[in-house]
Amino acid sequence: MAYNGCYGVAVMGHGVVGSGVCEILYHKKDLLTQKSGKTPVLKRILDLRKFPEAPYASLFTDDFSLIEQDPEIAVVAEAMGGLKPAYEYVKRCLLAGKSVVTSNKELVAAKGAELLEIAAEKGVSFLFEASVGGGIPVIHPVCRCMAANQITEIAGILNGTTNFILSKMIYEHTSFEQALATAQELGYAERDPAADVDGHDACRKICILASLMLGKEVSPTEVEPQGIRDISLADVSYAGAYGSVIKLIGRAKLLENGKAAVTVSPALVPKSGRLAGIDGVFNGVVVRGDEVGELLFFGRGAGKEATASAVVSDIVEAAGQDGNPYLFWKGGCGNVDTTGADQMAYYFRTERSELLPGLAQELFGEVCFLSGEDTPQDQMAFVTGVMEEKKLLAGADTLAKKLPVYAALRVLDY
Amino acid sequence: MAYNGCYGVAVMGHGVVGSGVCEILYHKKDLLTQKSGKTPVLKRILDLRKFPEAPYASLFTDDFSLIEQDPEIAVVAEAMGGLKPAYEYVKRCLLAGKSVVTSNKELVAAKGAELLEIAAEKGVSFLFEASVGGGIPVIHPVCRCMAANQITEIAGILNGTTNFILSKMIYEHTSFEQALATAQELGYAERDPAADVDGHDACRKICILASLMLGKEVSPTEVEPQGIRDISLADVSYAGAYGSVIKLIGRAKLLENGKAAVTVSPALVPKSGRLAGIDGVFNGVVVRGDEVGELLFFGRGAGKEATASAVVSDIVEAAGQDGNPYLFWKGGCGNVDTTGADQMAYYFRTERSELLPGLAQELFGEVCFLSGEDTPQDQMAFVTGVMEEKKLLAGADTLAKKLPVYAALRVLDY
Repeated sequence: MAYNGCYGVAVMGHGVVGSGVCEILYHKKDLLTQKSGKTPVLKRILDLRKFPEAPYASLFTDDFSLIEQDPEIAVVAEAMGGLKPAYEYVKRCLLAGKSVVTSNKELVAAKGAELLEIAAEKGVSFLFEASVGGGIPVIHPVCRCMAANQITEIAGILNGTTNFILSKMIYEHTSFEQALATAQELGYAERDPAADVDGHDACRKICILASLMLGKEVSPTEVEPQGIRDISLADVSYAGAYGSVIKLIGRAKLLENGKAAVTVSPALVPKSGRLAGIDGVFNGVVVRGDEVGELLFFGRGAGKEATASAVVSDIVEAAGQDGNPYLFWKGGCGNVDTTGADQMAYYFRTERSELLPGLAQELFGEVCFLSGEDTPQDQMAFVTGVMEEKKLLAGADTLAKKLPVYAALRVLDY
Repeated sequence: MAYNGCYGVAVMGHGVVGSGVCEILYHKKDLLTQKSGKTPVLKRILDLRKFPEAPYASLFTDDFSLIEQDPEIAVVAEAMGGLKPAYEYVKRCLLAGKSVVTSNKELVAAKGAELLEIAAEKGVSFLFEASVGGGIPVIHPVCRCMAANQITEIAGILNGTTNFILSKMIYEHTSFEQALATAQELGYAERDPAADVDGHDACRKICILASLMLGKEVSPTEVEPQGIRDISLADVSYAGAYGSVIKLIGRAKLLENGKAAVTVSPALVPKSGRLAGIDGVFNGVVVRGDEVGELLFFGRGAGKEATASAVVSDIVEAAGQDGNPYLFWKGGCGNVDTTGADQMAYYFRTERSELLPGLAQELFGEVCFLSGEDTPQDQMAFVTGVMEEKKLLAGADTLAKKLPVYAALRVLDY
């Protein structure tokens, strides 16, 4: 793959991440050579725009075929985002025998199985460390450093925007709407915040991790994410009374039936646990393996430099190997558990009623009633014991027929 | 390296880690094949003892040459510990063209540069993820996933025994002696606890990480570790009053003079920081890179399964590559800063004296006096501002000439 100890690199998309990748490749050639023994040479940058001030202004092109047909380009970094035209271009690069690395979680979650298969056939790499957790190494450690383990569970704070908003709600008692507005002012949230606050971004990421855990595809189309729009300060207060905080948790757990429970939802996690202290725009991922026990990976989950750091490390990795058998999952559907077989506790917030203690006990057995600070006088909240989720959901249905239920959240143990 | 999709593996040493490695290789052949596309075949186990009950009893030998001369053995896992005969055997295996993986931090810290050079010449791998942080991936992520970064700082809780003892002192107000006795009863501490409590174990680990950061050897012979024997409950209490806890921190920081400040010592770290919440036998490592910012890796730092997990992952890794250019440092000495150029604050505990406020200000500028709970009436403690360590040490010398100084600890920001 290398020629004269050098290899050609193309970057597709010169936005936030792509420009960061170009800058590192251009300014850190010596460091990258020293660390890997081979020198990456930036040869082409695909973008419809021109950047005449850039030191590599001459490398810009809007003609994809110049990349596809250049035999000296061994590794292509895709940083365009979205599926169109990223999917077609990535596929054509792999078919042309080039390794591809990407930060595009939408592409990996939707087309990963197919692209990994093409890469394997061609003996090249398709790497995407930056698609989950930004600059935090997660995929690589899970696939390679935990190779001796059956991964049994992965759970994490995978979206910095929602974590920033929830941290504001927890520590500054800001309402969701106010916290979102602040996040937008600071550039942490988009003007249309749906992808973040409704959980779609976290869903793509946990689907990628779930696919790695199973070795089988888990598509975002099979997971219904629950976002944080409905979280109120009353929930934050009741959670505090339970020794917990509310975090948006993406979670994949291997069940005895061989399928994975895969969820994205706000959940109560204990203040003494691993994820509760991860605040603001930081991300953290807990991985449990049958040999190593529980590991935590923590860091900056987004941002130009952090994400570009992960993309460039993948470029170096791809250049140093002939294919990557560690990273693989089979295409297909039906790998997500839909029977509610997973076990956990639930938190409910309802209308205050004298009926509630008896009703809750009838539906869920022993429960723990919470007394939050500054919570509405006409409401009550409680946490159930741990049981199968299908029993919790059936109980919730019955409960909702008798009393208004304002919130129903998972209670998780990370 | 592979033959028929299989490769032979030998394990040297059938103690805690070695037996764990054999069990995983024997019982998890399918999983390892599925994850890496190649099948490891356990061929020989070197030990002076026999284990007739083991399912692989026929593989034991006390004759090293049977491993050295077997062309089908491609990867050797060294789990004997110590330098003799591990150093000779590892060197001979590498010279025979076999990759070697090890959990032996003493060997790696003392002979890493030479063994890495032999491995590079022979085009094989010398891997040692398990030598630092047990099952926690640290070396691999630092070398590969952070390849785009100049690593600027590494700091961690690298020894579970001392962390267990300090956690007992912090949360149960147990004296050092009592906490050590409990650790010995539970099997967390050796009968002779010197390697752990005097900081030698943590020192080897931070020297390995410092060598990786610099690309140049940092030998434990150039670092004087400070252990935890002298930490008193008074220090724990004063630290609490400062919003901190005391942890044994191994630390390597790249300085502007191109050398590294490398220290192992008990230190005050803020309760709100990344390392304060890592308690008991767990380990955690903070790594700072110029692109990605701060990452934290956390998990079980020792134990049979966790350590064997890391060794086996290295076996799989070694079998899948021809050498490992990512992992390298040059031999030599003089790479540790001895000028005290690093910046930090210090904590001092001294005899109570009316002279102290004036003296402390004269020596260190503005300081913060602490009032701990249940601390001796005849003592005082204070924390300085951040300044060059050489200035702190000079001040400490002068202070000790005027008043008894009972404790002098670094105050670090992790």
